[in-house]
Amino acid sequence: MQRTEISTLGEFGLIKHLTQSFELKNSSSLKGIGDDAAILDYKEKQVLVTTDLLLEGVHFDLTYVPLKHLGYKSAVVNISDICAMNGKPKQITVSLGVSKRFSVEDMEELYAGIRLACDHYGVDLVGGDTSASMTGLTISITCIGEGEKGKVVCRNTAQPNDLICVSGDLGAAYMGLLLLEREKKIFAGDNSIQPDFAGKEYIIERQLKPEARQDIIESLERINVVPTAMMDISDGLSSELLHICKQSNVGCRVYEDRIPIDYQTAVMAEEFNMNVTTVALNGGEDYELLFTVPLSMNDVFQNLPGIKVIGHTTDASLGSCLITRDGQEITLKAQGWNSLEK
Amino acid sequence: MQRTEISTLGEFGLIKHLTQSFELKNSSSLKGIGDDAAILDYKEKQVLVTTDLLLEGVHFDLTYVPLKHLGYKSAVVNISDICAMNGKPKQITVSLGVSKRFSVEDMEELYAGIRLACDHYGVDLVGGDTSASMTGLTISITCIGEGEKGKVVCRNTAQPNDLICVSGDLGAAYMGLLLLEREKKIFAGDNSIQPDFAGKEYIIERQLKPEARQDIIESLERINVVPTAMMDISDGLSSELLHICKQSNVGCRVYEDRIPIDYQTAVMAEEFNMNVTTVALNGGEDYELLFTVPLSMNDVFQNLPGIKVIGHTTDASLGSCLITRDGQEITLKAQGWNSLEK
Repeated sequence: MQRTEISTLGEFGLIKHLTQSFELKNSSSLKGIGDDAAILDYKEKQVLVTTDLLLEGVHFDLTYVPLKHLGYKSAVVNISDICAMNGKPKQITVSLGVSKRFSVEDMEELYAGIRLACDHYGVDLVGGDTSASMTGLTISITCIGEGEKGKVVCRNTAQPNDLICVSGDLGAAYMGLLLLEREKKIFAGDNSIQPDFAGKEYIIERQLKPEARQDIIESLERINVVPTAMMDISDGLSSELLHICKQSNVGCRVYEDRIPIDYQTAVMAEEFNMNVTTVALNGGEDYELLFTVPLSMNDVFQNLPGIKVIGHTTDASLGSCLITRDGQEITLKAQGWNSLEK
Repeated sequence: MQRTEISTLGEFGLIKHLTQSFELKNSSSLKGIGDDAAILDYKEKQVLVTTDLLLEGVHFDLTYVPLKHLGYKSAVVNISDICAMNGKPKQITVSLGVSKRFSVEDMEELYAGIRLACDHYGVDLVGGDTSASMTGLTISITCIGEGEKGKVVCRNTAQPNDLICVSGDLGAAYMGLLLLEREKKIFAGDNSIQPDFAGKEYIIERQLKPEARQDIIESLERINVVPTAMMDISDGLSSELLHICKQSNVGCRVYEDRIPIDYQTAVMAEEFNMNVTTVALNGGEDYELLFTVPLSMNDVFQNLPGIKVIGHTTDASLGSCLITRDGQEITLKAQGWNSLEK
């Protein structure tokens, strides 16, 4: 495979090379890459801004994460945050720190993934910054989105006795991660053996190529529902539920038997000898939506495809608990991933 | 000095600890830190977005850059980009990657600098991301600003026969950098000797604590002038002039004897046996404004404090040249700093 050193292009050359084929699609993107700042016009809409920093060795491991997938995922995790505000993602900026280990072709792969995400979610690349790094790859993405006045949804506005809903299923991305880590160890040093992921494609894909649930936001819009509170599940259901409860000053009851879990997630958890509920509660990176709606909408939400009602909020004094299959109450704890804790 | 390990606080604890004393000041900042995204309302204004990634060992050297200064500068370089669009900076997001080498107190210092910049420029901290890093310190800042319709200034709109103006003086930040690098080498290994910066305070300050020229933007607004093109000088005058010329499809003539240079910069250049014009043309990080205005404004701009007319644009066919003191024409080349070139 061809290898072109990044130094042959330089900073401006590299940015131009990687971004010249991106075209602006959104009417709010007046000017993208090429000036001191991008120019946007949101007219009567509110502007949502979110940002994420991804560091090699902390957030991703390039021994099993293809650069194209990494580009896609880096964009998606930010897009997901805009969806989680009940907003529409419109623009991203991408900043890269790149060590000499990487070639121009590597960066093309990364941008191919970013481009795929931009196309899939209708987002414009409008800026960024590219520089050398002493050590590995650093990716910083900021996503800007549009919110309608009165319809932007925060975490601190759940009411007691709301229904608690989640989209999709939980724990799969974490099982995908553990599987990739295991295979990496098994096959370290022997390139002739290829890991066998047959029957495990779903959990691998959930880890390597997650999606933002823009489709759920669109479904809610179609049935004219604005959740009372919402966030995306990046650090695990438990951790996110506690954020909503704490910030909204409510408690919650979540039912173990209602937590949506895919078959492959359950099989993998068993293989790892882990409790699948623990996996679903504390495994991160699902990027599903967790939201609350008034109890009066129970009939609607019990039958909405892709959405599961997993419990309800309560008075704050009742605390935040999981009700197990055998009816026990267990206090929820945030045990999700935290890069800064030991 | 007390040293608190970051792991004792964790990610959410650290963010809260560092940001809880920041208050929102701007009416466009509806919601800051604490949700999936910040919520802004720019009403009829345009939204300007810029971002910068700063990596330890590439963009800064903590052996002589105090963390408080680093925080201030990291914010200022982004604020400067918004000013360079003729905009008003309003919000920043700050993402940090922090290795175990750093303590909570270190991060407090960094945020004290960020806070100082926020207060000085009237900017709100509205979001960010904090995580562990394997290696050193990574800072990614996005700045969002307000532009008035029809008054946002890009790089590609200079006309032939415009006046070329710069604010302040040039080359000082680069001389400050070379001085700090020299003293670092001289005193390496001997902590008892303190470097002597007497009489060199200005160039040191220009390197360690640059300012964004928001005051110039305000001056221009007062006299009701919208430049035809503008950018800030981060990579050196030569490089930036060529950006404006190329993107606007014009040429330029810049006069060596009109380039504003401070006395300390000239003295330091002589000490280093460097040509001071070369230093002013190619030294980066001045964060002064480079802009063009119609020739008809000559009388106004010849007498505006803090602004110097250094030349004029021409037809593109005439190329981009420096006219030396002895009347020679030298073609301008971009030799500014580029982290990705060898």
